Amino acid sequence: MPKRCKVCGREAYVYLPQHNLALCKEHFTERHERVVLETIRRYGMFSRQDRVMVALSGGKDSVGLLWTLKKHGFKVFALFIDLGMGAHQERVNRVIERVAERIDVQIVRYSLREHYGVTAPELFRRHRRRHPCSVCGTVKRYLINKLALELGAEVVATGHHLDDEASVLLSNVLRWDDEYLRRQSLVLPKTHPKLVKKVKPLAFLTDREMRAYAEAEGLPYVAEECPFSKGARLKAIAEVLDELERVSPGAKLQFYKNFYKFKEKYLGEAEPPQLRECRVCGMPTTSEVCAFCRIMGKG
Amino acid sequence: MPKRCKVCGREAYVYLPQHNLALCKEHFTERHERVVLETIRRYGMFSRQDRVMVALSGGKDSVGLLWTLKKHGFKVFALFIDLGMGAHQERVNRVIERVAERIDVQIVRYSLREHYGVTAPELFRRHRRRHPCSVCGTVKRYLINKLALELGAEVVATGHHLDDEASVLLSNVLRWDDEYLRRQSLVLPKTHPKLVKKVKPLAFLTDREMRAYAEAEGLPYVAEECPFSKGARLKAIAEVLDELERVSPGAKLQFYKNFYKFKEKYLGEAEPPQLRECRVCGMPTTSEVCAFCRIMGKG
Repeated sequence: MPKRCKVCGREAYVYLPQHNLALCKEHFTERHERVVLETIRRYGMFSRQDRVMVALSGGKDSVGLLWTLKKHGFKVFALFIDLGMGAHQERVNRVIERVAERIDVQIVRYSLREHYGVTAPELFRRHRRRHPCSVCGTVKRYLINKLALELGAEVVATGHHLDDEASVLLSNVLRWDDEYLRRQSLVLPKTHPKLVKKVKPLAFLTDREMRAYAEAEGLPYVAEECPFSKGARLKAIAEVLDELERVSPGAKLQFYKNFYKFKEKYLGEAEPPQLRECRVCGMPTTSEVCAFCRIMGKG
Repeated sequence: MPKRCKVCGREAYVYLPQHNLALCKEHFTERHERVVLETIRRYGMFSRQDRVMVALSGGKDSVGLLWTLKKHGFKVFALFIDLGMGAHQERVNRVIERVAERIDVQIVRYSLREHYGVTAPELFRRHRRRHPCSVCGTVKRYLINKLALELGAEVVATGHHLDDEASVLLSNVLRWDDEYLRRQSLVLPKTHPKLVKKVKPLAFLTDREMRAYAEAEGLPYVAEECPFSKGARLKAIAEVLDELERVSPGAKLQFYKNFYKFKEKYLGEAEPPQLRECRVCGMPTTSEVCAFCRIMGKG
């Protein structure tokens, strides 16, 4: 059905069922960026004085986030980790080159192979019992934190969007895991000198909105899925949420937003965990050897 | 794949992925009934001295429940409400006749038309803005309670199974409705002289297990869905849970069971609501005129 932009009456570029809102390209982009900026402001994520590092994967979400932050005058740079994932990695690397041409920001490239002599697929083979997404997540979380510290960033912004966040939430709710529920947050504060603050400015925007934004702004991005992500439990949960959203538009956003009211009322904030220094690398961990060093086969 | 009964090694009748358990017909039936009896015992639902009324719809769940209770020596009878739902009702009524031949219990038939001069489809037409399931639910809850009192039942047992219960739970979680979450329970205690205790002995058994049980015991039941239930939100949510269960066998049961631990830790039990007597019928209600009388267009 043809829809008209609610703001200006022009032909709509996108219809957002969760808000019953049709918008032209211009007003969609405007609204989208306003949501990002309001999320940053309302949750005290960072100010225009902070040096912000975007964890850049090359997908539409992190590219879109980097673009929005740069466009609105934040002091931003990006970290891109080359995981050595074969032909897929080469396609990602070519996109990152195009992102670097398009967005006038520093993009720090960090190669896992150059620094650790190993690629992600080699690690997946060494840890067959774990899903590759779990291994890769541990490696990326560690390196993002470590490099943010080394590169002098006050805060790391990641491209997690509503679909990611709602999937993690549903996954934790399905087990009623109170510790994980308590830890779910838009902002992970700095709880240790060697841990950097982490924030999710896209948490109220859907996967579909991120795609529409990248297209509207003509941003280069990696459209293909990571070949190792097949069978990830969170992907199945995301599909389930999509189905719920189809039946009840707005269900995802309501589920995610209302959770924080419920959390505040009944769960409270998580206690910062007791941390010590990893025997191998010296980074903060709850065990003797940190998860990263164990994956790397050290210690 | 051919499976063997875990108890006796005979060819399996059913495989329950959530328990990684294959069972022959005999041992499946034995286990199934043990689960029902343990649920009744552990949650203090009723004893062999109590007069129990089963709310009988004619579906596999309430027929199976009635059969199990009778088989195990409970003082049980059934209430069957004829809602006047046209050709579907006639098929249901014929099944109820077969149930009466098969299970040696009293089945009280109560006709909505005879007592109130109206049929459920007429009520659906009068309340087009509400989903028929919502109208029908209000009517049935009211009449089941009223008739249990009149017929001298200490407790009403309903055929709600795990899929029903987990769907309601997920529906409430998606809105993080703390009041509804707090009220979710296997046992609704008697909180008023005119409200009868209500229990759900099938809450830990799946829809699929109920079907397998009815087939194993050769019970007559209505297999067709109610023609008015299309588009019910809970049906969509049940399908979503089926998909999750397919990906992670046992997810439904874990979600439902762990909720009660979480509820006990963080939410506690619901306060009994402030009740007064309906101005029209005198039954307990939170408003001036009860939901049933409003649906009936009285008061």
